[in-house]
Amino acid sequence: MKRLFRRQTEKAGLPPGSLVYTGYKSAEKVKIKLIRYNESDYSEYDIENVGELESFKNTEGIKWVNITGLHQVDIFESFEKMFGIHLLTLEDVLNVNQRPKFDDYDNYLFVVLRMLSFNKGTNEIDNEQLSLIVTKEFVFTFQEKEGDVLDNLRNRIKNNKNRIRRLGTDYLAYSIIDTVIDHYFYLLEQIGEKIEALEEKMVKEPEDGNVEEIHKLKTNLILVRKSSWPVREMVDNILQSESELLSDATYNYYRDVYDHVIQIIDIIETYREMVAAVMDIYLSSLSNRMNQVMKVLTIIATIFIPLTFIAGIYGMNFRYMPELEHPYGYPIVLFVMLVIGLFMLYYFRKKRWL
Amino acid sequence: MKRLFRRQTEKAGLPPGSLVYTGYKSAEKVKIKLIRYNESDYSEYDIENVGELESFKNTEGIKWVNITGLHQVDIFESFEKMFGIHLLTLEDVLNVNQRPKFDDYDNYLFVVLRMLSFNKGTNEIDNEQLSLIVTKEFVFTFQEKEGDVLDNLRNRIKNNKNRIRRLGTDYLAYSIIDTVIDHYFYLLEQIGEKIEALEEKMVKEPEDGNVEEIHKLKTNLILVRKSSWPVREMVDNILQSESELLSDATYNYYRDVYDHVIQIIDIIETYREMVAAVMDIYLSSLSNRMNQVMKVLTIIATIFIPLTFIAGIYGMNFRYMPELEHPYGYPIVLFVMLVIGLFMLYYFRKKRWL
Amino acid sequence: MKRLFRRQTEKAGLPPGSLVYTGYKSAEKVKIKLIRYNESDYSEYDIENVGELESFKNTEGIKWVNITGLHQVDIFESFEKMFGIHLLTLEDVLNVNQRPKFDDYDNYLFVVLRMLSFNKGTNEIDNEQLSLIVTKEFVFTFQEKEGDVLDNLRNRIKNNKNRIRRLGTDYLAYSIIDTVIDHYFYLLEQIGEKIEALEEKMVKEPEDGNVEEIHKLKTNLILVRKSSWPVREMVDNILQSESELLSDATYNYYRDVYDHVIQIIDIIETYREMVAAVMDIYLSSLSNRMNQVMKVLTIIATIFIPLTFIAGIYGMNFRYMPELEHPYGYPIVLFVMLVIGLFMLYYFRKKRWL
Amino acid sequence: MKRLFRRQTEKAGLPPGSLVYTGYKSAEKVKIKLIRYNESDYSEYDIENVGELESFKNTEGIKWVNITGLHQVDIFESFEKMFGIHLLTLEDVLNVNQRPKFDDYDNYLFVVLRMLSFNKGTNEIDNEQLSLIVTKEFVFTFQEKEGDVLDNLRNRIKNNKNRIRRLGTDYLAYSIIDTVIDHYFYLLEQIGEKIEALEEKMVKEPEDGNVEEIHKLKTNLILVRKSSWPVREMVDNILQSESELLSDATYNYYRDVYDHVIQIIDIIETYREMVAAVMDIYLSSLSNRMNQVMKVLTIIATIFIPLTFIAGIYGMNFRYMPELEHPYGYPIVLFVMLVIGLFMLYYFRKKRWL
Amino acid sequence: MKRLFRRQTEKAGLPPGSLVYTGYKSAEKVKIKLIRYNESDYSEYDIENVGELESFKNTEGIKWVNITGLHQVDIFESFEKMFGIHLLTLEDVLNVNQRPKFDDYDNYLFVVLRMLSFNKGTNEIDNEQLSLIVTKEFVFTFQEKEGDVLDNLRNRIKNNKNRIRRLGTDYLAYSIIDTVIDHYFYLLEQIGEKIEALEEKMVKEPEDGNVEEIHKLKTNLILVRKSSWPVREMVDNILQSESELLSDATYNYYRDVYDHVIQIIDIIETYREMVAAVMDIYLSSLSNRMNQVMKVLTIIATIFIPLTFIAGIYGMNFRYMPELEHPYGYPIVLFVMLVIGLFMLYYFRKKRWL
Repeated sequence: MKRLFRRQTEKAGLPPGSLVYTGYKSAEKVKIKLIRYNESDYSEYDIENVGELESFKNTEGIKWVNITGLHQVDIFESFEKMFGIHLLTLEDVLNVNQRPKFDDYDNYLFVVLRMLSFNKGTNEIDNEQLSLIVTKEFVFTFQEKEGDVLDNLRNRIKNNKNRIRRLGTDYLAYSIIDTVIDHYFYLLEQIGEKIEALEEKMVKEPEDGNVEEIHKLKTNLILVRKSSWPVREMVDNILQSESELLSDATYNYYRDVYDHVIQIIDIIETYREMVAAVMDIYLSSLSNRMNQVMKVLTIIATIFIPLTFIAGIYGMNFRYMPELEHPYGYPIVLFVMLVIGLFMLYYFRKKRWL
Repeated sequence: MKRLFRRQTEKAGLPPGSLVYTGYKSAEKVKIKLIRYNESDYSEYDIENVGELESFKNTEGIKWVNITGLHQVDIFESFEKMFGIHLLTLEDVLNVNQRPKFDDYDNYLFVVLRMLSFNKGTNEIDNEQLSLIVTKEFVFTFQEKEGDVLDNLRNRIKNNKNRIRRLGTDYLAYSIIDTVIDHYFYLLEQIGEKIEALEEKMVKEPEDGNVEEIHKLKTNLILVRKSSWPVREMVDNILQSESELLSDATYNYYRDVYDHVIQIIDIIETYREMVAAVMDIYLSSLSNRMNQVMKVLTIIATIFIPLTFIAGIYGMNFRYMPELEHPYGYPIVLFVMLVIGLFMLYYFRKKRWL
Repeated sequence: MKRLFRRQTEKAGLPPGSLVYTGYKSAEKVKIKLIRYNESDYSEYDIENVGELESFKNTEGIKWVNITGLHQVDIFESFEKMFGIHLLTLEDVLNVNQRPKFDDYDNYLFVVLRMLSFNKGTNEIDNEQLSLIVTKEFVFTFQEKEGDVLDNLRNRIKNNKNRIRRLGTDYLAYSIIDTVIDHYFYLLEQIGEKIEALEEKMVKEPEDGNVEEIHKLKTNLILVRKSSWPVREMVDNILQSESELLSDATYNYYRDVYDHVIQIIDIIETYREMVAAVMDIYLSSLSNRMNQVMKVLTIIATIFIPLTFIAGIYGMNFRYMPELEHPYGYPIVLFVMLVIGLFMLYYFRKKRWL
Repeated sequence: MKRLFRRQTEKAGLPPGSLVYTGYKSAEKVKIKLIRYNESDYSEYDIENVGELESFKNTEGIKWVNITGLHQVDIFESFEKMFGIHLLTLEDVLNVNQRPKFDDYDNYLFVVLRMLSFNKGTNEIDNEQLSLIVTKEFVFTFQEKEGDVLDNLRNRIKNNKNRIRRLGTDYLAYSIIDTVIDHYFYLLEQIGEKIEALEEKMVKEPEDGNVEEIHKLKTNLILVRKSSWPVREMVDNILQSESELLSDATYNYYRDVYDHVIQIIDIIETYREMVAAVMDIYLSSLSNRMNQVMKVLTIIATIFIPLTFIAGIYGMNFRYMPELEHPYGYPIVLFVMLVIGLFMLYYFRKKRWL
Repeated sequence: MKRLFRRQTEKAGLPPGSLVYTGYKSAEKVKIKLIRYNESDYSEYDIENVGELESFKNTEGIKWVNITGLHQVDIFESFEKMFGIHLLTLEDVLNVNQRPKFDDYDNYLFVVLRMLSFNKGTNEIDNEQLSLIVTKEFVFTFQEKEGDVLDNLRNRIKNNKNRIRRLGTDYLAYSIIDTVIDHYFYLLEQIGEKIEALEEKMVKEPEDGNVEEIHKLKTNLILVRKSSWPVREMVDNILQSESELLSDATYNYYRDVYDHVIQIIDIIETYREMVAAVMDIYLSSLSNRMNQVMKVLTIIATIFIPLTFIAGIYGMNFRYMPELEHPYGYPIVLFVMLVIGLFMLYYFRKKRWL
């Protein structure tokens, strides 16, 4: 099983606000991409040096800065000075085992999300932290590894000149959150299909490998649940926030996200019940099969053990055994055996064992 | 099992407000039926072209427009212009996997319901989304497929000149919601009868096919539950809404619906307990049967194995075995065997195995 | 099992306020009994015709009208005109599958209760709806069948000149509710005794019939629970009601009923846990018995199968088997068999199987 | 099992405020003990006649009146006149199956507690009702049987001149409640020790008697839980009460009791989980033992059944069986049997059955 | 299992505020260590006599007094006089079985925590109470035994001149609480690793010892849960406290602790589910193995029992058995046996038992 919670030990005992990256170390360079757009223009930049970001301050348009790779801790220290981001926030960005949350600072909003995606290589769920910092003119997104579920969104910004190009950073933040959450539906759909496949198979012919499959489904559901339950609270906090960074225009959109999260939680709970029901089928089918095996054994043994006993009797070497001398002794015994066997079969049929 | 949640993947990544139909595609034409009535008059119209609806605006009477078939997305776009329906609402109408909800827009009310009916052909529960848009003079109902549970209601409107013909769109909306919810009682009754039949059968003679039946009942209950739990919240929201579209006169009727939903939830929870209890009976009867099989095997084996052993001893070919020469050796051995067998039977009777 | 929920289907699709009786039809005539009393006088009347009730209006004293039998629907229609009872109330009176509730109309109070009593004939719980309508001078009680738990109360009114004869209809209503609820204690006591009897039997010698008994206890508890949970909410609503029909003097008495209901719910939950515990004992005793059976089989088989094998060897007909010729071959083999048998017994004793 | 709920049937149908004792009848005389103390003096009185209590009214000092035995109902009727105790209160005092509660009357406070103590004779938990009536100068305690957990407290009052001798009836009431509740810790400790002992035994060698022990622990926990859950609410009500009979000085002490009750509930819930865990161990160990038994049977049977078959073949009496004539036939067959047996053993070892 | 709750019996019946130590008695001397620091200075003192503490009152700097060992009760009595600590507080310090709580007295704050650490010697979790008393210039910490998780914190104070050296006792208290809570992550990580190891092992090859391991994990989770659930409430109380001893500057830090506690509770609940899932795997694998064993037995028995019967027949000693005389009797019988055996194998393969 992929580990649900990664090492946090190295952090214990350090003062709060210490910037320590708790994810997988990587040798690759941190990549910083900046997208700048307004209603009419759109441009992309590859930032080599964090310092370059400063020159974009107070320029026109919405700036979306995506930082991939969190292992170069020194890069993040400059955010405090350049954009007034609190050290506690940066600590949370780097501590990639956070549960989803929303913090409202005066000059910026901070959102933590879990980005779940199905990794077809390992056949497991990739579970990455996506942190957002939303200021008046910037949206910063932080992720650990290359590759995310946001490419559709990027294309929409690039090709589409309507709503998203007109509205502010709060709408961009909404779009990112919504896209990440929408991807949960995709994951749940795949889990749902597996549950249904398993269900069908189970009813027909249960196999030993099924426990593992059920267990994997359970663990995946635990993971998605762990990632989406706190999102409900988080979006609720956004809806109740009175930050100036959130315009009235986006309120309805965040309410829509809220609806989606409720629906996701709903589906998860239903799936959990269904997995439990599948487990029940599995267990009762195990008992059933055992019954089946026992019956076969019992039928065979119960028919032949008495017959073998009779054969054993006439195999004894006593000198005086009158039946042995009888000319029809052998056929009579065979006939008696046949009768006993048939009676047994009749008895089992009556008991509905056959 | 019929799928609980249908594909939603195609929607992921699209901007909010995109009209995408997520249900089963159909080649049939979308059917639009309009019923117009007031206290004295009643008339029905088949609308060929959506545009015709515009001519009914600001005419006398309550207009109930029923749209069957949601696959022609372009039809719905005209609702935005003609009646001022928000794109997010229309998106929800077309996304037919919504959980029940109530949204209060300024100029209209939006209600989503699950219409459940027992399909006698497939022996399964049909689960269709019914969306209502209620304006001052129109009630729009949207459904995916032909056939619904509302025919009684239509007849009542047609033949009956009392209350329903006097009151407004809010009462019509109430009548539709009430009829859909009332149909849940019918479904639950059928489920309840199956539970009781299964219960009785289970106590008498449990069979292997029963797990599947129990499982199907469970899944059906999950479906009805999923459809009715959110209705409680929905009706509560209606009761607390201060929309001008809801008159005081209908308040008591919505409270009545609320009572019904509570009762439905009550019944579902009771049925869930009963199904769990039936499962318990099933499992313990499995164990019981296994016990039975084991006992038969044990009784037979325990009686005959020692006897066969004795027969085996006197079947040995040693040259010097004095018993074999004894003139009464054979009857004595037979008698000893009889005694052992009877003692075994006595022992099993004492142990209450017989 | 007696059906928990009776047919409600016939009602689906009818307009609200339709008077339809949903209980068991009966050919007997509806019986109307009126008791009139005040501090000094007491008299009983058998009412033949509903219309007669009108003449009691505005006469002195508290009037308790008990209607037995609900199948003559036309009788109830006159209540609307005579006493100003809302059609929705009368609909609820006739729809005898209501859950307990309290409705506060301006001119009267409406209470629905479940009257549970142990039917010694069928050995099942009779579950009847008792509806109360309380006006300033009347208390109407409606029940389906002859026979109730209120005879003690009637005698108290008849023979006792203190409190109940001095106070108003609200106190009479309280007395009726209290008596019905108090009867639940009696039922629970009987259930409790059965649980304890079963518990004791189970620990000593579990039998196959027990599952049915446990199941019946469970179903009975579900029924009592379904009937008493909503009563808590109902009494709470009465306590918080500001109706003029409820005097301050009876407030403490209703609080007392509330205490009783809480206690009943408490007992039910405890019983549910105890029944679950008894089921656990049953299941583990099943496993235990299976273990016992298996051990006997294993001991017998494990001792005699090897011995039989040895006997089989010396039963072979090879020409050259030196042991067979040996003068002490037979006793030596018997001795070896004895040693093997004793060793097996020692082994089983060590394993604590004997 | 000791009955959790005693007969209440005799009460059903009686008017509220009827004094009926629902506990065990006893022939002994009711004992009334009075302790009077203030900061300087302390004296004890045995009251023969209830009427004598009146003479203590309006005398100096705190008076603690302990009444043992509730079967002489007439005694209690005089409390109404002498001290203005409401009949409903006295009814609750005599109805000894109350759940813990706190009622605030104007001139007195009424508290019901369950006094639990471990009866070493019967090895069961004694469950007695202790009712307190607290007025400005009196504390009345009512108990059914001789013997309680309050002797330590009595000694403290007698020998100790500090706090308890200085403060009022509310502090005395607190001390009584606190002592009763503290005794629950003692009970829980004994239950806890049994759980741990059982746990250890279970892991080492599970036995058949264990189910009964687990069941008894469960029932005891249900009893303690039933007695302490309502205490939390009761103490909470005391803390929120604005009765003049409660001085500010004792507020902190009642808060302390609240803390204790929370801790007791905590421990109970933990114990319930532990008992459930022990049950799980028991059940899985049953399965495990069955596996063990089955393996032994299977190993023996699987090794010897084929060998016995071979022996059976060469025990056949066909005239033409060339192997039988072969001079090395016998040793060859023995060798083949040995090889088969060893192969079987190897197979079982590989399967880790040995 | 290490006992979850230690003896509290000795306390029952004593007056509140009695100082009684309920932990393990020790012969060692109580150790008192004082650390005094401000932004510029840092010094450590070993206090021999409690009285010496008085001389530090009203001196400059934050004083952290750590008391190790609680068995010398007289030492604690002087705290009442010297620092105005309430006797009830000191009673709680010595009663080392408290659940975590926060009490706000006027002149000081009182915090109880459970300090959990993994004892590598006994392979169990050490569960010690850490009490904090926070005044304007002192932080007192009380622990039972030498050794704690706070050494990192001490080093930080010693070597680090930033934040912690500048802020007050409330920040020091926060740092201690945070460090203790952070250690729970470490514990959970170790538990998590064990769960995953067990999970993997279980899927591959379940063994008998696993129940004990699962049981131990469960018990450990119960312990951590018991220790951290009340912390949530405790920190919440701190956040809502309006004590002057808590400066605004530390509010955010306590909110951070709250986040951590929520995350810990989250992880615990997830682990509990995972342990339950592992138990499920274990139980179903037990059943599976039993099935396996049964199948082997059944296959062997079902093949050879009929064959042995045939051999038995031709081992009978009847004088007239024509087959025995037949020259090809023996090979024909062998061939028939082979056919029966092969048919059986084919049957089992078809049934998928092989």
